[in-house]
Amino acid sequence: MTSSPIRVGVLGHTGRMGAETVRAVEGAPDMDLVATVGSSDDPAALVEAKADVVVDFTRPDTVMGNLEFVLSHGMHAVVGTTGFTDERLAQLRSWLADRPELGVLIAPNFALGAVLAMRFAQQAARFYDSAEVIELHHNRKADAPSGTAAHTARTISQARAEAGIEPGGDATVSEVDGARGADLGDVRVHSVRLPGLVAHEEIMFGAAGETLTIRHDSMDRTSFMPGVLLGIREMPKRPGLTVGLEKVLDL
Amino acid sequence: MTSSPIRVGVLGHTGRMGAETVRAVEGAPDMDLVATVGSSDDPAALVEAKADVVVDFTRPDTVMGNLEFVLSHGMHAVVGTTGFTDERLAQLRSWLADRPELGVLIAPNFALGAVLAMRFAQQAARFYDSAEVIELHHNRKADAPSGTAAHTARTISQARAEAGIEPGGDATVSEVDGARGADLGDVRVHSVRLPGLVAHEEIMFGAAGETLTIRHDSMDRTSFMPGVLLGIREMPKRPGLTVGLEKVLDL
Amino acid sequence: MTSSPIRVGVLGHTGRMGAETVRAVEGAPDMDLVATVGSSDDPAALVEAKADVVVDFTRPDTVMGNLEFVLSHGMHAVVGTTGFTDERLAQLRSWLADRPELGVLIAPNFALGAVLAMRFAQQAARFYDSAEVIELHHNRKADAPSGTAAHTARTISQARAEAGIEPGGDATVSEVDGARGADLGDVRVHSVRLPGLVAHEEIMFGAAGETLTIRHDSMDRTSFMPGVLLGIREMPKRPGLTVGLEKVLDL
Amino acid sequence: MTSSPIRVGVLGHTGRMGAETVRAVEGAPDMDLVATVGSSDDPAALVEAKADVVVDFTRPDTVMGNLEFVLSHGMHAVVGTTGFTDERLAQLRSWLADRPELGVLIAPNFALGAVLAMRFAQQAARFYDSAEVIELHHNRKADAPSGTAAHTARTISQARAEAGIEPGGDATVSEVDGARGADLGDVRVHSVRLPGLVAHEEIMFGAAGETLTIRHDSMDRTSFMPGVLLGIREMPKRPGLTVGLEKVLDL
Repeated sequence: MTSSPIRVGVLGHTGRMGAETVRAVEGAPDMDLVATVGSSDDPAALVEAKADVVVDFTRPDTVMGNLEFVLSHGMHAVVGTTGFTDERLAQLRSWLADRPELGVLIAPNFALGAVLAMRFAQQAARFYDSAEVIELHHNRKADAPSGTAAHTARTISQARAEAGIEPGGDATVSEVDGARGADLGDVRVHSVRLPGLVAHEEIMFGAAGETLTIRHDSMDRTSFMPGVLLGIREMPKRPGLTVGLEKVLDL
Repeated sequence: MTSSPIRVGVLGHTGRMGAETVRAVEGAPDMDLVATVGSSDDPAALVEAKADVVVDFTRPDTVMGNLEFVLSHGMHAVVGTTGFTDERLAQLRSWLADRPELGVLIAPNFALGAVLAMRFAQQAARFYDSAEVIELHHNRKADAPSGTAAHTARTISQARAEAGIEPGGDATVSEVDGARGADLGDVRVHSVRLPGLVAHEEIMFGAAGETLTIRHDSMDRTSFMPGVLLGIREMPKRPGLTVGLEKVLDL
Repeated sequence: MTSSPIRVGVLGHTGRMGAETVRAVEGAPDMDLVATVGSSDDPAALVEAKADVVVDFTRPDTVMGNLEFVLSHGMHAVVGTTGFTDERLAQLRSWLADRPELGVLIAPNFALGAVLAMRFAQQAARFYDSAEVIELHHNRKADAPSGTAAHTARTISQARAEAGIEPGGDATVSEVDGARGADLGDVRVHSVRLPGLVAHEEIMFGAAGETLTIRHDSMDRTSFMPGVLLGIREMPKRPGLTVGLEKVLDL
Repeated sequence: MTSSPIRVGVLGHTGRMGAETVRAVEGAPDMDLVATVGSSDDPAALVEAKADVVVDFTRPDTVMGNLEFVLSHGMHAVVGTTGFTDERLAQLRSWLADRPELGVLIAPNFALGAVLAMRFAQQAARFYDSAEVIELHHNRKADAPSGTAAHTARTISQARAEAGIEPGGDATVSEVDGARGADLGDVRVHSVRLPGLVAHEEIMFGAAGETLTIRHDSMDRTSFMPGVLLGIREMPKRPGLTVGLEKVLDL
C-alpha cells in the first residue's frame, strides 16, 4: 500500500532555511511541495493549495500570526522559527485545544545527529562518573563554549545527579590557567577554534579501562533537513504540541 | 539513609576475570567481599558467609552446578561464564520459578561502553540510511571483523529494516578489491590491524551535511568491572532471569 | 623593511579554481591582483599590467601556449592546470634554459595539508613496519580507494622498502571478504563512503604500545589557496622548474 | 650479507625500563643480550661479555660513573636515565674527545611516535597561522598540561615565529573562564582527564577549508623500546654525543 504524498507548504521560502526546506521537500518522494509563501505573499495560498503540513522558517514577530492562520485552517505545522516563550507555548496549546486533531512541532535544532548525540550523552551519563566535552568550531565564532556544548554539559550534569552519581574529578594539582577547560556543573568543556573547522562536538565518557565517545560533525545547513522532513511526516500522526525534535524520535 | 553493604561472593576468584572482580568489589564502598571460592573449594563458604549476590566467572562445565547451588540457597547471581544455550536458559528459568524473589544476570559482555555503543547504534540506525563500522585491533587478532563489529552491523541492519529505511548505498564503480570493506547486511565493516592498538570500535552514520560517530575504546579487562558491579547492585531488585547487560541499563 | 606587493595575474579567472585564486590574491596583504585573463581575452593584458607572477588554472590544451607567452615576457608562473607529460616538462625546461632567472611551479595538488600529510607519512614509514590508511569520502565518489590514498600507500610501501623494513603483517586467519581492506604494497587501505563526509584521509602507524596518526580533513577548494599563495611568493626566489608543491615546502 | 648481532649490555635491568629493555633486546633478531648489571653488580661483567653497546636506565646519581666506565672500556652507550645538565653533557663530550670512535645517545623520550609527532608539528607550524593542542590523560595525572604538550606548544610557537607567521587568533568575545584552554605562546592547549585514558596528544592545524591533525597514542612503556633498539643500532655508526632521539631519525 502506498500512501498519497504529504502536501507541504513553506512559509519563509526565500530565507536560507526556507530555501533549503523547499529543496528538501522537492527531493522527498513521499511529499509534494504545493505552496511557498514569502513575507509579502498572502498565506491564503496555503489553503487554496490544500497543504497538509506547513513549515515555518520566518521571524519571531510573524510566526504567531502565521500559526494562528495555519491552525484555524486545519493544517499541521513544523516550526523552526525561534523566540518561543512560555506565554507563546501556552497560546499555542490553547489554539490546539480547539483543534485536537492537529499537530505542531516547535524545534530549536533540527539536526538529527545533534539531537541524538545529546540524548546518548544523557543516557550514558547515568553510568559514568567522568565526562568531558570538546567542541570544535571555525575561528570566527564569538562565544566559547558553544551553546550546544554548554547545554550538553548541563544535561550530563543533571542526568548524573539524578542517577545519584558523584562526579569523578581528577588529580590535577598544578595547572596552567585554563588548561582544564571551563567547568560547567562538574563537566569540563574545551573549545577549539581553528580556520577549516565547521561545527563539531565530541562527548567523552571514561571509566577504568575504557572510554566511550559520541561525536557529531556538522558541515552545513542541509544537515537540518532530515529533521524537518521527519517532523513533516510525524505531525499528522502526533496531535497536540511537541517541543523539541527529540520527542519525535521515540528514543 | 545509607543501606548496609551488599555481601558479595566470587566463584572462580583465581581466574583473570574472577581476580579482577575481587579487586573491584573490594574497591566498591557499597559492597563487602565475604567469600571467594576456587575450583577445589567448597561453595558452602558462600552460605556460611551469608552472601547476598554471587558472581560466577568459572567454566561452562561447572557453571550450572554452581547456579543450582546458589539459587537453592537463596542467593542472587551475576554470571560472566559463557556457554549458555537455550536449554540452559530454560533450566535456569525453571529453577527461578521456584524462587521468584531471586535474580540472575547472564551477560556475555560486561563492558558498559560496548553495550551502550551497541544500543546507541541501534537507536541511530532508525534515522540514517547510511552507516559503516570501523573496528581497530592489535595485529595478533585472528578474525576480521571482530565479533562485536559483526554483531553491531547486524543490529544496525535490522533496526534500519524495522524502521522501513532502505540502505543508502554508494556510487563506487571502480574498486580495488576489498577497499570498501566487508558487506554485512548492507553495512560496510572495516578491520584495521596494527601493533599498539588494543580494541576499538567506531560506528559512523552519515546524512546530508552531517555525520554522527559512536566510538568505544577498550584498554584492558578492568573495563568489565563497572558492568559487573552494576549487575551486583541490580540483581536484588530484579527478580527472574535477565540475559544481557543492556537489559539492566534501562536505556 | 616592507617589500612592495607581488603583482599577480590570473589566467582562467572565471573557472572555479581561477575564481578562488582571484579571491585569495585579493585577500593577501603582500599581493596585488593586476590582471585577469579569460579564455577569450588577450594575454597581453598581463604584460601591460606588469605582472610579476602569473597563475594558470586553464585547460591542458591551452596551458602550454600560455606558458610560452608568460615566460617569453619575463613573468614567473604557478600552474595548477593538469596534463603535464614528460614531453611537456622537457619543453618547459628548454624554455627556462633561455630565461634562467624565471621560476615555474607545476603542482597537481595545492592543498598544503595533503602535501604535508603525504610527506609525514613518508618520513614515519621508515620507522614502523605496520601502517594502514583509512580514507573517508562522500557517497557520490566513484573510485575506491581515492587516488590520494593509493598514492599514500605506495609512498609508505616504497619508503619502508628503502629503509629495509619488512612489512609487519597481521595474524588474520578468518576474514569476511573485504574486511581487511585493499592491499596496496602491503599497506591496507580502507574506503569509507557516507553522505555528510567531504574528503578525509587518516594514516595510522603502529608499534608495540603506541600508534601515530596523521589526518587530513578537506572541506572545500579554499583549502588549495594557501598553497597557491605560497607558490606565488616562492617562484620569484626559485628559478627553474619545480614540480610538486612539496618541493617548495623545504621539509 | 648478514652482520653479526650487536652485543648488548643493560645497566639497571631490574628497573621497569631496564626490564623492558631486556625483553626487547632478547626479541631483536639482530642483537644478543650479553650482560645485565644491577645496582649491586660489578660492571666489569660488561667488559667480560664483550658488549658493543650498553643501555643505561639507572639513576641520576650513578649514571655518570657508569658512563665513565663504559666509555673508558670502549663501549657505545644509549642512555634513558634523566638528570643531564649542561655540565654533565660537557663532561661527556670531554670523555668522548679521547675516544672519538665511540657514540653516546642521551634521550629524555624514546617513544618514536612522540618524537615524530613533535617533529611533524614543528614542520607544519611553518605553514599554518593557527594551531591548537589537545592532550588527553588518565585522571590521576597531577599536572595540566602535560610536559610534552607544553613542549609541543612552545615548539610550534617558535617555528611559527621563525617562519615570520603571525598567530591567526580567533574571534572569541564571550568566554566561560577556561573554555579556550591554556595560552602557551599563542597556542591554545586543552587538557582532558578521564579514567580509561592513558597518554594521548593531538595537534591540530587549521587553514581555510582544511585541517591537519597529528596524533600520538601511547598505551604503555613498550612504546619506548623501538626507540631504544634504534639507538642501539645507530650508536656504533654515529660517533660523538647525540642528544635527543630525533637527531638519530634523520628527518
